[in-house]
Amino acid sequence: MRIARFSIDGNVAFGAVEGSGPDELVLDIIKGIPFADFELSGTKVPLNKVRLLPPVLPNKVVAIGRNYAEHAAELGNAIFDSEGRPEAPITFFKPSTSVVGPGDPITYPSFSQDLHHEAELAVVIGRMCREVPKERVKDVILGYTCANDVTARDVQQREKQWARAKGFDSSCPLGPWIETDLDPRDLTIQCTVNGEQRQLGRTSDMVRSIEDLIVHITEAMTLLPGDVILTGTPAGVGPLNVGDEVAVTIEGIGTLTNKVIKRG
Amino acid sequence: MRIARFSIDGNVAFGAVEGSGPDELVLDIIKGIPFADFELSGTKVPLNKVRLLPPVLPNKVVAIGRNYAEHAAELGNAIFDSEGRPEAPITFFKPSTSVVGPGDPITYPSFSQDLHHEAELAVVIGRMCREVPKERVKDVILGYTCANDVTARDVQQREKQWARAKGFDSSCPLGPWIETDLDPRDLTIQCTVNGEQRQLGRTSDMVRSIEDLIVHITEAMTLLPGDVILTGTPAGVGPLNVGDEVAVTIEGIGTLTNKVIKRG
Repeated sequence: MRIARFSIDGNVAFGAVEGSGPDELVLDIIKGIPFADFELSGTKVPLNKVRLLPPVLPNKVVAIGRNYAEHAAELGNAIFDSEGRPEAPITFFKPSTSVVGPGDPITYPSFSQDLHHEAELAVVIGRMCREVPKERVKDVILGYTCANDVTARDVQQREKQWARAKGFDSSCPLGPWIETDLDPRDLTIQCTVNGEQRQLGRTSDMVRSIEDLIVHITEAMTLLPGDVILTGTPAGVGPLNVGDEVAVTIEGIGTLTNKVIKRG
Repeated sequence: MRIARFSIDGNVAFGAVEGSGPDELVLDIIKGIPFADFELSGTKVPLNKVRLLPPVLPNKVVAIGRNYAEHAAELGNAIFDSEGRPEAPITFFKPSTSVVGPGDPITYPSFSQDLHHEAELAVVIGRMCREVPKERVKDVILGYTCANDVTARDVQQREKQWARAKGFDSSCPLGPWIETDLDPRDLTIQCTVNGEQRQLGRTSDMVRSIEDLIVHITEAMTLLPGDVILTGTPAGVGPLNVGDEVAVTIEGIGTLTNKVIKRG
């Protein structure tokens, strides 16, 4: 099922996306919330009559760095130490205030001159969990969506921790919806800027699997329903400029499109 | 005014702390929430009959590293670059799931063998704000409380970003209450372990002022009512062991006490 979050006439609701073809999609409004048992109401609204919102409002976004070897290499970073052992995954937070939805603007931050796109597969957590064993990871996942881990590359290189470089307002576009029926292990992940391909990878090239990442994260912290895990970006990251339209497309999910605007 | 958050008979409320002497304190229950205009109800409960909670449930905690020169030096870190220019402040997040209250246990994480205390002055944000000019910072602050930026030092040294080392469950004790009438510029800040003094500093030794920190943070991101800023720790950080009682005392606020327990 594809679950979207949307606003119509000032009300916010979740809906199941049905139909095919961009102009024929409808939302069957969900009674309740998708983090518990829920029913479809049968009341349907055309998707092109609503405003899609971020498919979830996470309490926190936990993101992973250097999870695709080619991307680590393009930034000159090792994923193995000098003795050939894998480095611990790089784990950082993006705050709830960084999240925007499909079609929302990415506002170019005033303190950066080198904004980059990073297309990523996002995992949406379905239930509160801690110390999840590998074989139970599938039980805590609600589904998957597209993410853009927008990064002020110059600030990231200048500041030792990445709270500002990767946590500024609008640095975490998510959407267009949550796909709940998906095997995430070998999907094409692509990023285009103004229609031109910049990033192309496959989730099968992740250094660490989604299972391993969730074990690693929940060893330390509780995840809450709606929390989001970003699983790293493939090679091809590059600059975004004011006016650019950036699109993240993941096989089996859809396309998340955002436009970069000047700080007003 | 001192504003505490507490539970009594299963209900959660804010209250103004009145009286003097540990056994004579009472809470005048607040009608509404302290982030808007509110009144005191006149209904009073003895403080020793309630369970104090974290004085605020932040959406995010934004913390600052290396803001006291002596502490930076004790960990072998420079706060100036090779040409004598100050490094950018280190800015990182602690998630809402890391927050616990006064008297709550700090659970020793399974993945660390070197847990450290870091006593810090915490700033509680009173209103939604972004791009706050220096002269307006006082308008966005509700008050101040004590914090312990509990850190898995070995994990911090091993992992390049600090989400696990400083973001694990119970790594952010806050309390005992919010003091709203306080000049934070020259206060004694102290940490004891089992009654023995470990850290002693003055907030006047901060490398960057609270005004500068909030300008720096809100240049990048929106702060929400209840968000918390941790302003760095003075020299004297050191290990915590299971069974230890750690207390952070800040002049004009009070004492935040927590006990370290084994993961159960």
